[in-house]
Amino acid sequence: MNPPALDFWFDFASTYSYPAAARVQATAAEAGVQVKFRPFLLGPIFKAQGWDTSPFNLYPAKGRHMWRDLARICADMGLPFCQPDPFPQNSLLAARVALVGLNESWGDEFCVAVFRAQFGEGCSISEVGTMAALLAKLNVAAEPVLAAARSDATKARLRSQTEEAERRGLFGAPTFITADGELFWGNDRLEQALRWAKHAR
Amino acid sequence: MNPPALDFWFDFASTYSYPAAARVQATAAEAGVQVKFRPFLLGPIFKAQGWDTSPFNLYPAKGRHMWRDLARICADMGLPFCQPDPFPQNSLLAARVALVGLNESWGDEFCVAVFRAQFGEGCSISEVGTMAALLAKLNVAAEPVLAAARSDATKARLRSQTEEAERRGLFGAPTFITADGELFWGNDRLEQALRWAKHAR
Repeated sequence: MNPPALDFWFDFASTYSYPAAARVQATAAEAGVQVKFRPFLLGPIFKAQGWDTSPFNLYPAKGRHMWRDLARICADMGLPFCQPDPFPQNSLLAARVALVGLNESWGDEFCVAVFRAQFGEGCSISEVGTMAALLAKLNVAAEPVLAAARSDATKARLRSQTEEAERRGLFGAPTFITADGELFWGNDRLEQALRWAKHAR
Repeated sequence: MNPPALDFWFDFASTYSYPAAARVQATAAEAGVQVKFRPFLLGPIFKAQGWDTSPFNLYPAKGRHMWRDLARICADMGLPFCQPDPFPQNSLLAARVALVGLNESWGDEFCVAVFRAQFGEGCSISEVGTMAALLAKLNVAAEPVLAAARSDATKARLRSQTEEAERRGLFGAPTFITADGELFWGNDRLEQALRWAKHAR
């Protein structure tokens, strides 16, 4: 029998996906649940709701609370935190590189590193240089990976991943989905999602 | 020295304020924190953001998740749950009656009862009959209370309470605010707010 499984859906520009990515592996391992990292793009989903940027920019009071709340959460977790500028960052390149990595062995680790570079160290994740530096730290040769990231096959995979997200009813990130299709939105729902996953096999 | 204090801001039509109201007193008492119930109206704040109804109606995917999530939370807490129809309910009358009660001894208990009637038993909280029945259960004579609720003084208090909410940066409910002005949004932030309140005296 396979261990219970949980899909972890995220956009690299999503703020609360940072603490979620930082803790999902250890928290899931402790619960005996296998996590699958699933990067997608929130942009097209937001656009379908009539938004052309993050709702945290569109609704300033909500945005102010989010930054403060995220800083408090990171402090509690001992995670470095700095507010990306500009926000949201363009997450297209990082998502494509991640898809290449998730077909190899370094995908999960790369995803966690992208979030930390952006929200912990102030790096611009839209830049090829940032991607190359992160790959170098993982001892992955950057050139072939970046070429694969720019290939039509990878572009199509990201589009289809994003279409699947929309089809499954995703409207924000992070989102956790169990094997039986139960959807949990938000970093603060991880524990509930893991409990559900254990009964959903 | 006074015990640490926490303001609990809510709109009676707010979905996640139901589990928050059901647990805030016991949770705060356990933490040694004194809670002040502060009803206000989200309508004017939503209107200022360009919304003419609940965001859960405006954004259907978000709404679908919220109802499911709320049902899961209520099940975990052993709280009865049914989806109000229509949603959102008009919370004006209930908020005015609550303000009368919060000047007397039965305010907190009345607020908890309004949420339970609406989200647990399917009652329409915009109806005078519902208010009268809830007051009767608390052994409070309905007539003078309903008259006080309709007075200009109470109407003005609710308006000023709502203006204060907007001034303090509230954009949703439930919201918890500590004595030093730290703002925590959401039922799932109650524990953090209580920890903060204990250090904020």
